[in-house]
Amino acid sequence: MIILGVDPGLTCTGWGIIAKAGSRLSHVANGQIRTDASRTMAERLVELDTTLTDVILAHRPDAGAVEEVFVNVNPQSTLKLGHARGVALVSLARAGMPVAEYPTKVIKKALVGTGGAQKQQVQAMLKVLLPGIRLAGEDAADALAVAITHANMLGSHR
Amino acid sequence: MIILGVDPGLTCTGWGIIAKAGSRLSHVANGQIRTDASRTMAERLVELDTTLTDVILAHRPDAGAVEEVFVNVNPQSTLKLGHARGVALVSLARAGMPVAEYPTKVIKKALVGTGGAQKQQVQAMLKVLLPGIRLAGEDAADALAVAITHANMLGSHR
Repeated sequence: MIILGVDPGLTCTGWGIIAKAGSRLSHVANGQIRTDASRTMAERLVELDTTLTDVILAHRPDAGAVEEVFVNVNPQSTLKLGHARGVALVSLARAGMPVAEYPTKVIKKALVGTGGAQKQQVQAMLKVLLPGIRLAGEDAADALAVAITHANMLGSHR
Repeated sequence: MIILGVDPGLTCTGWGIIAKAGSRLSHVANGQIRTDASRTMAERLVELDTTLTDVILAHRPDAGAVEEVFVNVNPQSTLKLGHARGVALVSLARAGMPVAEYPTKVIKKALVGTGGAQKQQVQAMLKVLLPGIRLAGEDAADALAVAITHANMLGSHR
């Protein structure tokens, strides 16, 4: 079973793909999608949609999981984040896979055992769970973390 | 020139299409897309994306315009609205048309002459500008208003 995790953002969206065989997880690929801030909102969202769709076509995931974003104190930032997250959800769901959503705290708890874990702790645990992994960046790490969370939630009985 | 206006929302998205020939405007079609609140966010966004794409394929607009949504005091509502608006922007832009964005005040000013106009005043003016029109609802009316705003902004020199 191939699982795609996504940590959405307008400036940078992280993605990470893992394979699950029974209870064994392995890394497939990870990356980050940066959109060009000099372009219009609509153009940036198309960049995000097109690149995510390319990732999906290349790896054919069976399931997707998207991080629930922080609701920012700045409503304009929340709206922008909402734009990117809406596009991420639609890119995955349009490809026909079921899409789960997990809050950041649940993801941290799934990986490190506490919802208040630091980013460094999550990344250290990723390197334990997926040995030899090279991370494209912080957002790609968060995306792999949401994919692993989903794999754990699905249980090992598939 | 065919112009598609959209007033995005997760529960209900209005759309309206007008034709512009010189300075003359005429109504082509309008409607509202309601998503099923019992489904997941990802499924609702796919419903919105698919239906908007069907509208685009049926009418082949040359240009699109999307209303800038109110930033709600409730951050969760702002995030949901952002999801729907992001999907609307990407549906239009992916089809290859340029997409403009207008704040509600600019739309009201373009139609009624004042940014503080009531919805009823906007709808009354729509019936003057597009005689015989039947509106699918308030959101469809707002969508036609954003399409007319864009037609006016483009000028009559095309």
